[in-house]
Amino acid sequence: MGAAGSGPAGGRGRAGVRGRAGVRGAGVRLSRRALLGAGAVAVGAGAVACGAPGAAPAAADRVVPFRGAHQAGIVTPAQDRLHFVALDLTTTDRSRVVALLREWTAAAERMTAGAETTPGGATGGNPYAPPEDTGEALGLPASSLTLTFGVGASLLTKLGLEAQLPAGLAELPRFAGDRLDPALSGGDLCIQACADDPQVAVHAVRNLVRTGFGTTAVRWSQLGFGRTSSTSTAQATPRNLFGFKDGTNNLKAEDPDALREHLWVAPGDGPAWLDGGTYLVARRIRMHVEIWDRTSLAEQETIVGRTKGSGAPLGGTGEFDVADLSPGGPIDVNAHIRLASAQELGGVKILRRGYNFVDGSDGQGHLNAGLFFVAFLRDPHAQFVPMQQALARHDVLMEYVEHTGSAVFACPAGLGEGAYWGQSLLEA
Amino acid sequence: MGAAGSGPAGGRGRAGVRGRAGVRGAGVRLSRRALLGAGAVAVGAGAVACGAPGAAPAAADRVVPFRGAHQAGIVTPAQDRLHFVALDLTTTDRSRVVALLREWTAAAERMTAGAETTPGGATGGNPYAPPEDTGEALGLPASSLTLTFGVGASLLTKLGLEAQLPAGLAELPRFAGDRLDPALSGGDLCIQACADDPQVAVHAVRNLVRTGFGTTAVRWSQLGFGRTSSTSTAQATPRNLFGFKDGTNNLKAEDPDALREHLWVAPGDGPAWLDGGTYLVARRIRMHVEIWDRTSLAEQETIVGRTKGSGAPLGGTGEFDVADLSPGGPIDVNAHIRLASAQELGGVKILRRGYNFVDGSDGQGHLNAGLFFVAFLRDPHAQFVPMQQALARHDVLMEYVEHTGSAVFACPAGLGEGAYWGQSLLEA
Repeated sequence: MGAAGSGPAGGRGRAGVRGRAGVRGAGVRLSRRALLGAGAVAVGAGAVACGAPGAAPAAADRVVPFRGAHQAGIVTPAQDRLHFVALDLTTTDRSRVVALLREWTAAAERMTAGAETTPGGATGGNPYAPPEDTGEALGLPASSLTLTFGVGASLLTKLGLEAQLPAGLAELPRFAGDRLDPALSGGDLCIQACADDPQVAVHAVRNLVRTGFGTTAVRWSQLGFGRTSSTSTAQATPRNLFGFKDGTNNLKAEDPDALREHLWVAPGDGPAWLDGGTYLVARRIRMHVEIWDRTSLAEQETIVGRTKGSGAPLGGTGEFDVADLSPGGPIDVNAHIRLASAQELGGVKILRRGYNFVDGSDGQGHLNAGLFFVAFLRDPHAQFVPMQQALARHDVLMEYVEHTGSAVFACPAGLGEGAYWGQSLLEA
Repeated sequence: MGAAGSGPAGGRGRAGVRGRAGVRGAGVRLSRRALLGAGAVAVGAGAVACGAPGAAPAAADRVVPFRGAHQAGIVTPAQDRLHFVALDLTTTDRSRVVALLREWTAAAERMTAGAETTPGGATGGNPYAPPEDTGEALGLPASSLTLTFGVGASLLTKLGLEAQLPAGLAELPRFAGDRLDPALSGGDLCIQACADDPQVAVHAVRNLVRTGFGTTAVRWSQLGFGRTSSTSTAQATPRNLFGFKDGTNNLKAEDPDALREHLWVAPGDGPAWLDGGTYLVARRIRMHVEIWDRTSLAEQETIVGRTKGSGAPLGGTGEFDVADLSPGGPIDVNAHIRLASAQELGGVKILRRGYNFVDGSDGQGHLNAGLFFVAFLRDPHAQFVPMQQALARHDVLMEYVEHTGSAVFACPAGLGEGAYWGQSLLEA
């Protein structure tokens, strides 16, 4: 039971299964339930999960270390399911925020290890007090849960930290075709929960939201049912709701030089509290799949620039063939993969980590479906903005989509032992 | 590759993985991708999938036979994920509806076997025509997909079939505390897609919706991320968003006598087209989890009538212990499990098959979370109505929930070879 492993900065290397007699504090004790599970596997930040989407999933009790040089949930091999929440502060009292962030950090670390928010939190406490864990993940393994924390510009303003505002948190320009709903945009802070079991991701967000009562309130929340990106060369490229493989040329965990150049904020980029961190750009993209579905296969492939079956760039034969972007070549001048390519954008690359969603119906006879685009990058204004400007102006795909939500968050570096979410900022 | 099996009435016993060269017509040919997959497993309607929720999932390429004495997706061991859609007819032309039902049936049968809607539908057809499959499930295995079809009373009215209206489709009474949104209620017909991979369930619904364009339009649609019921004794009981095990005393596939008594419509119950079928009652139940989470553990357990940890009825020690419902016994007079018990309801039992959901946020600082309750039963008015009346009047849980959507559908018996969805009704 439980191959021990350790993250780059002392990540917890063992996990039990949540349960009444489960993990308690730092001295890990495995519950009886845990003994019934399959072997737990700890994955270091640089390690790799494998398997095609839909192939036999990774061990459900895989644990991703919570602490490390960088936050988990960024280059971690993209898990299958997402629950993302943006929250607003309901206070401007910095000490209350710090107290919450400490409490969140402790609960987050425990939950990513497969434990309850507090020892015995669901059923073991004072029966005449509300439980400290809501219980719906009791008996479920860690499921590769990661919890990634970010702050928006408005948090710094509310807490009087304007002097620490990094340039990357400046508001995004309006892009052609934007139809942003303020109720689906912005937020003082965000928590991205990714896991291979959606109940585990939902449980984590719900318990952090619960803990925040009185200090934070939910601004918006998004479930994603299927990953649309790979962040590791060992993962098969999944398909988006246009039916195409997406993100073939994504940044990958196995290319540290590219991550240093395009992903991680470096000393000197801006205020020191964000060194080793990154920015998260979220865009809720409604996809008018009904219109797309009435487009011919040939036109779809021309618009995307790839063949639908194999994912090969037009003119190529394999998904990972280098796209022939020569003028007059097989790939249209306004094809999506050309406009989004590093070649066309002066070398710009980003780490995409988005998810397919369906949020019921739109009241007009259609599914309310789309892509919850999440990207991590070193500088939103130098990377996301030029890319989105090129796409918004020229990409024919834009005729089939509508950007309905938008937010930018700064995600600080990973935590060393004893540190709490946002500490580098709150104590800057 | 591919252990062959067969359903009770010639269900397709082999499955490939969707792909360009995938399953073609009735003569099943396995694609190259399929050969790379793990062994396919066919599950007869009476067979049993196992595994605790969150334990190593069943083989992803498990195929549930589409045809049989009863529709799949009812006593089939409850899969992990749901996409449910209610549609309205946009025509009253019976022949157009029949043509669509034939087309739907062929596509549904292929998709549940892990294939595209039509042979080569995603990428193999005329490149200058819209593809006949949207492609996002290419490369994904069958994932235990089931597609269950039902009709609402309004369909019969629209198509001039009033004489065939079964008594079970009469409108439900208003229950105390109902706050039903018409946009989340009713529908001329429904399709319930259940699968262990949500992308497979969403793909199936999306393609049936697409095929229906011009004849049907989406009325409402609901994703469920986690099952809240077991329909087989081999499944572990999952937890709802109140953190409790739910449906311990559910009807189970292994009890054919109880299914005959409580689930399947029998000859003589009503119009013959529904013989061997069942009714589906859907209720979208918003759960005010934030209020629940501020309730003490003791109060939660009193309200439910079970211990939160083990799921044992109060006074018992194991989940499956018989509840002591004696007057003055350990279980409160208004406890949920007492009010919903067969003992209190004159022997009434139902087959619950619901799912947890989170539909973003409610705009007031909370998650929009709850239970999408789905039950199958022989007579909604003799079974669901008295149960819900008792719960609506006396169940303290009702203080924490709000019924926001409601629908009743009649689900005909399973299909023999060559039959199509709704044939017994349309040709009655």
